[in-house]
Amino acid sequence: MKISVVKNILEANERIAQENRAIFDEKNLLVFNLMSSPGAGKTSLLEKTIDTIKEDLRIGVIEGDIQSSQDAERIAEKGIPVVQINTGGACHLDGNMIRDTFDSFDFDALDLLVVENVGNLVCPAEFKVGEDFKAMILSVTEGEDKPTKYPLMFRESKVLLINKIDLLPYVDCSVEKIRSEALKVNPHLTLFEISCKTGEGLDGWYNWLKQEVKQRKLVQQLAVDEHNRD
Amino acid sequence: MKISVVKNILEANERIAQENRAIFDEKNLLVFNLMSSPGAGKTSLLEKTIDTIKEDLRIGVIEGDIQSSQDAERIAEKGIPVVQINTGGACHLDGNMIRDTFDSFDFDALDLLVVENVGNLVCPAEFKVGEDFKAMILSVTEGEDKPTKYPLMFRESKVLLINKIDLLPYVDCSVEKIRSEALKVNPHLTLFEISCKTGEGLDGWYNWLKQEVKQRKLVQQLAVDEHNRD
Repeated sequence: MKISVVKNILEANERIAQENRAIFDEKNLLVFNLMSSPGAGKTSLLEKTIDTIKEDLRIGVIEGDIQSSQDAERIAEKGIPVVQINTGGACHLDGNMIRDTFDSFDFDALDLLVVENVGNLVCPAEFKVGEDFKAMILSVTEGEDKPTKYPLMFRESKVLLINKIDLLPYVDCSVEKIRSEALKVNPHLTLFEISCKTGEGLDGWYNWLKQEVKQRKLVQQLAVDEHNRD
Repeated sequence: MKISVVKNILEANERIAQENRAIFDEKNLLVFNLMSSPGAGKTSLLEKTIDTIKEDLRIGVIEGDIQSSQDAERIAEKGIPVVQINTGGACHLDGNMIRDTFDSFDFDALDLLVVENVGNLVCPAEFKVGEDFKAMILSVTEGEDKPTKYPLMFRESKVLLINKIDLLPYVDCSVEKIRSEALKVNPHLTLFEISCKTGEGLDGWYNWLKQEVKQRKLVQQLAVDEHNRD
């Protein structure tokens, strides 16, 4: 009984996520859904990323939090469009919440939309919002056992950013072990070892992300050409 | 519609939690529900606590995880009774899951039962399992804004353990700020600043916990005396 309720909610969400996706496709917008535990560095990564790539890409951000608007205020200081969603208790974003922000954006003026999910290593992985891909951050302070203990999030993510590597000398944690445990769960992960504090490793992430946006535009253009030829 | 479903689930859980509580009362058992983000140090705190107080108190542990039994194995090495619950996706423990472990324990041989919840700063706060109190761990690597962003957990907790203070020289985080933000949300919190790595601050926690168990037994005895006198 409880399970069927959950199934219905997930199916309804899937439908809405697909509708969102169609709109993102039409606007030729790359959308990724950024997930992590509380405090792993989602907003810090976005701040750094925006600073570096906003000359090349037009970025918008949706901030998801149970309550408060601190993260949206941090992002707004970068001078880019941002909308705060307060879930009012819910531990993840869903398709409907994302849909409700659409009137606040001019998608024609964006190349990249980032959805920063609620800090939670469980439920956000279950809900699509119409994104192209999910990305997750794991901080080295969280320990090596997280891929085994929270496998769904690692399985659903295309990208794993291992953050806070500047703290490695002070914690009992091996990046190699995180890598191998994560790849056991999902051998297709694209991995970056980064420190949002020192900037180490971030260039690789910026370049990869810019390439993803470029490639998405190309693929979309090819689809339009194909459609026009038919 | 969705809200009423959630409300029904919470009400059903509340009833089961009360039944669990009655059993714990009868057995004169102090039960606390330990919550935190993934990797904040719940299992490490339990390992240290068991090592130190198992001479004085008879301890049992219920380990909650989405999947895997790594934590239960770590606790079992201490030679105390432990049961692993795998929630199979659910992001919190509830009263029913706790009830299902009862046959695995001899409550007459325990003074203290610790429930280690799924690593999650959101949902575990909403579900009672029959505990005397909730305790939470926040690691200093998670940042100062967590009380504002996840207020329910701070509000529902009796105890806040601020962990990983050995990392303070290497992170942009002030313990004073965490304390003040947490106390704004819940002025009744009992606070401990600890490092499970170095052991700093743990004595205060051990003494407090032993005192809680002692006092609970006394209160229970007074209730029995009162009942017998009537």
